[in-house]
Amino acid sequence: MKFVVIGGDAAGMSAASRAKRNNPDLDVTVLEKTMDVSYSACGMPYNIADPERKIEDLVVRQAHVFREKQDINLLTGHCVESIDTANMTVSGTSLHGNTFKFLYDKLLIATGGSPIIPDVEGFDLPGVMALKSLDDGRKIKAYIQFNNVKKVVIIGMGYIALEMCETLRARSIDVDMVKPRTVFLPWMEKELADVVKKEVELNNVNIYLEHQVEKIEGRDRKLHVICSDLSLETDMVLVAIGIKPNSELAARAGLDLGIKNAIAVNKKLQTSNKNIYAAGDCTDAYHVVTGEKAWIPLALRANRAGWAVADNICGKDAKLSGVAGTAVFKVFDLEVARTGLTVGEAKKFGFEPVKVVIKSRSRAHAHPGASTIHVQMVGDTKTGRLLGTQMVGKEGVAHRINAVAVALHNQMTVKDYCQTDLAYAPPFGPTWDPTLTAANQLLKKI
Amino acid sequence: MKFVVIGGDAAGMSAASRAKRNNPDLDVTVLEKTMDVSYSACGMPYNIADPERKIEDLVVRQAHVFREKQDINLLTGHCVESIDTANMTVSGTSLHGNTFKFLYDKLLIATGGSPIIPDVEGFDLPGVMALKSLDDGRKIKAYIQFNNVKKVVIIGMGYIALEMCETLRARSIDVDMVKPRTVFLPWMEKELADVVKKEVELNNVNIYLEHQVEKIEGRDRKLHVICSDLSLETDMVLVAIGIKPNSELAARAGLDLGIKNAIAVNKKLQTSNKNIYAAGDCTDAYHVVTGEKAWIPLALRANRAGWAVADNICGKDAKLSGVAGTAVFKVFDLEVARTGLTVGEAKKFGFEPVKVVIKSRSRAHAHPGASTIHVQMVGDTKTGRLLGTQMVGKEGVAHRINAVAVALHNQMTVKDYCQTDLAYAPPFGPTWDPTLTAANQLLKKI
Repeated sequence: MKFVVIGGDAAGMSAASRAKRNNPDLDVTVLEKTMDVSYSACGMPYNIADPERKIEDLVVRQAHVFREKQDINLLTGHCVESIDTANMTVSGTSLHGNTFKFLYDKLLIATGGSPIIPDVEGFDLPGVMALKSLDDGRKIKAYIQFNNVKKVVIIGMGYIALEMCETLRARSIDVDMVKPRTVFLPWMEKELADVVKKEVELNNVNIYLEHQVEKIEGRDRKLHVICSDLSLETDMVLVAIGIKPNSELAARAGLDLGIKNAIAVNKKLQTSNKNIYAAGDCTDAYHVVTGEKAWIPLALRANRAGWAVADNICGKDAKLSGVAGTAVFKVFDLEVARTGLTVGEAKKFGFEPVKVVIKSRSRAHAHPGASTIHVQMVGDTKTGRLLGTQMVGKEGVAHRINAVAVALHNQMTVKDYCQTDLAYAPPFGPTWDPTLTAANQLLKKI
Repeated sequence: MKFVVIGGDAAGMSAASRAKRNNPDLDVTVLEKTMDVSYSACGMPYNIADPERKIEDLVVRQAHVFREKQDINLLTGHCVESIDTANMTVSGTSLHGNTFKFLYDKLLIATGGSPIIPDVEGFDLPGVMALKSLDDGRKIKAYIQFNNVKKVVIIGMGYIALEMCETLRARSIDVDMVKPRTVFLPWMEKELADVVKKEVELNNVNIYLEHQVEKIEGRDRKLHVICSDLSLETDMVLVAIGIKPNSELAARAGLDLGIKNAIAVNKKLQTSNKNIYAAGDCTDAYHVVTGEKAWIPLALRANRAGWAVADNICGKDAKLSGVAGTAVFKVFDLEVARTGLTVGEAKKFGFEPVKVVIKSRSRAHAHPGASTIHVQMVGDTKTGRLLGTQMVGKEGVAHRINAVAVALHNQMTVKDYCQTDLAYAPPFGPTWDPTLTAANQLLKKI
């Protein structure tokens, strides 16, 4: 059987490797349009922060290992341009200009996502960069180095924008952040978002909310980010306003797209064509809280979906239950985490949400070195279910969110979560874990 | 209604406070035999580590606050000696030598636990100490200070022994640890236990396994801990071989005792007499994995049980589902955590357990500062259920265990746990959380 994979990062290489482990006789071909495979994309901000490290340190497994040790026909620099579902072939052109065509029995589309670049004047100027692929990271790192960048304007204020903000400050680069929306971190309650905003400002980053970038101009070896009442001079611009799924190839092949134009897949990761699977940032997923489709492109899901595809094409029955929307990021000295729904999201899906916002401590009463942990927790008054949690603090946030994530997978009620036996020792938290304190408070409203 | 509480620490004061919040008209009396109430007992090792801090820093709420602000009739120095269930009274003697008797409508026994002191020659010598009550902590701290203690022998190697070992080394006191059993941390696989043992030894603590203490002798202002082939000279001995439930009062009143002589309670915390409740370290609990009774005396359960008693006597219906046996402790630079069952425990309860022991990392591939996280995970081949997990590492262990604890409350299978959407960012772990890597490996054996 011929298994062809389009895209050689998290989902694609996970699938290819596992398929070969499942069935060493399988004929596995991976077509990757760039020259990079199997790298830790999420590690790029931390790599860029350190001028001494090569971007290639992020490569988890080298292409030749896949080829020689795992017997995978891995072709880099191979851009797939079309899928012929009737004849079960994929075709394209290599970086060397050669056309290629491969027959498949089972196909996996793992084309990932791309940064959204607005169709606005000046976004195509040299020095206006975005960060998604390893090559993006390589270019940004080289640009900073060779142009002696002293100032960056970041457009957008999401995870990547905030992580890169820390990266750039670590390299003593001045940073301004700008976005059109009025609210900083709109998925958090103001009290929590303000803690993050303050931390960013404390690190001498200027935050400009409610500023729509109208154009970027280049003159005198500087870039100028122009808003209606603001002009920011800079050496480099980082565009970090979000990503979109790379689903055009799938759409042209007639496959169904779903939410936010991601490729629609069932729990077995099959697209609307049963011989074509899709996995990773280009696909949607079921949300375990709502039961509905969601598009939340994150690394763990990509890896897991890659594995599930490999199992399914090898005759095992692998169904993924879905995502809880669990995410964490670090920004300067803060850990910021979330899982499940916000109040706004819960309303959209027909819940009748209530929330609490509480403060707790990262260590026990009277234990030295404790800091504040802010917890926001959302529950449903109709069913009593726990719907989501957001947290901010200097320590003890990143892994604490996982207890709530597991609760969401089990559709636990707030009342039942209140009963969970969580670990306690003075260096690690109060007797009542901060998520339990939040749940105890929330229970009073349900 | 008269609500009388015997014991004024975690369970007792939680119950008294919440009962008054539930019903301000309630007549609440707390009888505490020592002069201390409402303190963070678990914080004692960390307080003793710092000669500058007073042991009273650990008091969470002062006695006068309970009396004046919460209108609780809190009587310290009141030792209850008997319960008359027919006449519904408790009687005893105060530290001033006065006898007292109180009528109750509802009674709570929250008498806690006591350190086990073997009936062996010399264990009653001055300088042979144990740590459970705040007064124990006060005495140990004073003894170290006033006797210029340079060397301590700790008998026992459990949580408190190990925490105190760190405490004493922080004060530059030499430490020997001794116990009769052959295995260090018997509830962990050897691979994990060895990591902890090595850490303790690295901090210049001598560990003597397989040494039964035959007697302690005092001569020339020194203590001598004598085993058959070993004699350890020391300034102080800490006896930390475990605790036992303070259930004698309950037993004399004819109440049923359960596992390990703890007071048997139902999910509403009622003893075999429906007007008498018990909570905290003196009582048993249902284990959420086995469904059977267990005696795992820990702080969170005590607080939670205190609240549940208050709710039940105030006419709410509060049932506690049980404990998962979740615990964490810090020893030098290591975090050590567990939840659920070990292989040995699982066998005793009729499971057919299999386990994996894996190594993972505390941060992502190529992220600086990563250290090893060791995970042991136990599952049941009959039902596929996840039964327990133990972890050791320098960071990222303490809160990570909670995700598994919540899974145990939901009786999740290993397969379902493998699907949970846990948080990922490079500073906080690999894409696959260490507990997921363990579960993925374990799934192959189930």
